[in-house]
Amino acid sequence: MTQPVNRRIVLARRPAGEPTPADFRLEQAPVPAPAPGEVLVRTVYLSLDPYMRGRMNAGPSYAPPVEVGGVMEGGAVSVVEASSHPGYAAGDMVVGRTGWQDYAVADSKAVRKLDASVAPVSTALGVLGMPGLTAYTGLLNIGKPQAGETVAVAAATGAVGSVVGQIAKIKGCRAVAIAGGADKCAFAREELGFDAAVDHRAPDLAQRLKGACPDGIDVYFENVGGAVLNAVVPLMNPFSRMPVCGLIAHYNDAAPPPGPDRLPGFLMRVLANRITVRGFIVRDFADQHADFQRDVGGWLREGRIRYREDFIDGLENAPAGLIGLLKGNNFGKLVVRVSPEP
Amino acid sequence: MTQPVNRRIVLARRPAGEPTPADFRLEQAPVPAPAPGEVLVRTVYLSLDPYMRGRMNAGPSYAPPVEVGGVMEGGAVSVVEASSHPGYAAGDMVVGRTGWQDYAVADSKAVRKLDASVAPVSTALGVLGMPGLTAYTGLLNIGKPQAGETVAVAAATGAVGSVVGQIAKIKGCRAVAIAGGADKCAFAREELGFDAAVDHRAPDLAQRLKGACPDGIDVYFENVGGAVLNAVVPLMNPFSRMPVCGLIAHYNDAAPPPGPDRLPGFLMRVLANRITVRGFIVRDFADQHADFQRDVGGWLREGRIRYREDFIDGLENAPAGLIGLLKGNNFGKLVVRVSPEP
Repeated sequence: MTQPVNRRIVLARRPAGEPTPADFRLEQAPVPAPAPGEVLVRTVYLSLDPYMRGRMNAGPSYAPPVEVGGVMEGGAVSVVEASSHPGYAAGDMVVGRTGWQDYAVADSKAVRKLDASVAPVSTALGVLGMPGLTAYTGLLNIGKPQAGETVAVAAATGAVGSVVGQIAKIKGCRAVAIAGGADKCAFAREELGFDAAVDHRAPDLAQRLKGACPDGIDVYFENVGGAVLNAVVPLMNPFSRMPVCGLIAHYNDAAPPPGPDRLPGFLMRVLANRITVRGFIVRDFADQHADFQRDVGGWLREGRIRYREDFIDGLENAPAGLIGLLKGNNFGKLVVRVSPEP
Repeated sequence: MTQPVNRRIVLARRPAGEPTPADFRLEQAPVPAPAPGEVLVRTVYLSLDPYMRGRMNAGPSYAPPVEVGGVMEGGAVSVVEASSHPGYAAGDMVVGRTGWQDYAVADSKAVRKLDASVAPVSTALGVLGMPGLTAYTGLLNIGKPQAGETVAVAAATGAVGSVVGQIAKIKGCRAVAIAGGADKCAFAREELGFDAAVDHRAPDLAQRLKGACPDGIDVYFENVGGAVLNAVVPLMNPFSRMPVCGLIAHYNDAAPPPGPDRLPGFLMRVLANRITVRGFIVRDFADQHADFQRDVGGWLREGRIRYREDFIDGLENAPAGLIGLLKGNNFGKLVVRVSPEP
């Protein structure tokens, strides 16, 4: 059943600024064997997510970096090939953080079994996985949207932003998308149900956003930073909330951007309008996973939440996929098809 | 009893950057007479506070600006000269927002009676007044200090910071003062009981602050911005809190400071360490005034909270006092003696 080799993509060196293909290396290694309590899995779908850029740096972050020479980290949907744990059998579909490789052994507690009859298994990497949980917990716990409020969402057609906007609509809010390009803006309005969508590439972004938010912004779900944030700040209402989920515009920054220094003006707005700015990581809210599965799973079955996936074929193309993701080239949740579904 | 004229200081013009004496004008007007339900008061102590700089600007803030030609706003302790409300009699001491002037009429509901037997009446402008309430509510509601945590306080010998640090000590925290100059640092340690004090003028501020906070910073009470904030940010711990109370280093900024742009790096820290940054205004917590009077009044009587006042004589010297306050020239709560206590 198992192939003779395990292809895996390792971090060849730490990127300086924007990653390049030379920062990654495809290696071959023997397929590992599961120890007692472990399972051997074959990767079917590998998730590509912005946080991976942070793992490539040496600097301190909320998680240890990938070591140079180490397998790139990532979540994946896999099929069990061999199991030495009674809870798993060959053929079971599972999701876990098994990395950029064809095969992995994992502790049985580090993977979660999937039921393909509930939803396509790839959704365990998107709307029903880490990005969906990020959207659900960050919006509800920090954003605290109230009916009638305006919720602005950066990277609004991405894996996280698309769920944020749709939950905002379910909660009775006006949802305003900020996305890159006319196609994504049209998709946000027509498929995801945002009330308005603004192209962040427009030179008059600030004016357009103001027009899309006639009552200001009560919740800004921050995934981007940069010019998008600068356009949002003047619109933030008294007592508004800003969950800080990501800052993709800055992940490749090798040094602080040129001035002026916008931090004092930002904090003056925070002070005058009593804004709450709070960073979060999805695992801070791991205990809300059951609520998330019940709510978002239910909304998905009812057709109240939609999703879009953007597939890449072949593990060897994962580096180019991540490089493109950091430029906003993907359209929907980015997933690498590593091997066929059984 | 009343003098023939009411001296009052009005906003002559809006300052460009740092205020100058020419931005203020001393006028004389008739002493007003109280309408039914009003009291006529004579100002005894006028409070000078950093927020007053914001009221001199035309731009939007959390309160309307003082109009050009209008009397400068401010809290004051006064004595009732005449009353047409049964709850007040001549000779009563009151506190209210009666402005930079010798006399004022005020609605009876807009002033609060003081009991000079409880504490010196000037404390109604400081430790038992708006600055004390600011410290108490901002620290407890947003900072949420837990025993054993480190609380860093900017402008630590000022009217607000001195109360923040002492409440942090009462709550079992390590309190670290940041203040301007050796005298203020010594006062913070020896009189206010801070565990350590760091001079923000030191060229190696960041290193000194790191030395004073060996376990990082769990709560940073922000009153300053600028170089102090830049030294604090790298020390903020996971899940730390930053109540944003003031940004005195920036109140005179006529434009955003030169780069680099520190906002992206700040938000990266907020994200990675899941920091909560929240602006507040004292009136957001007006409903906690009774708790504040009970707690801080009690600590004051028990000698667990100390305070220092810095007096200026003469209403005509209030403009120079505010200009100096914005440079950190005061040492303790800045109060103008406008007329003698009865």
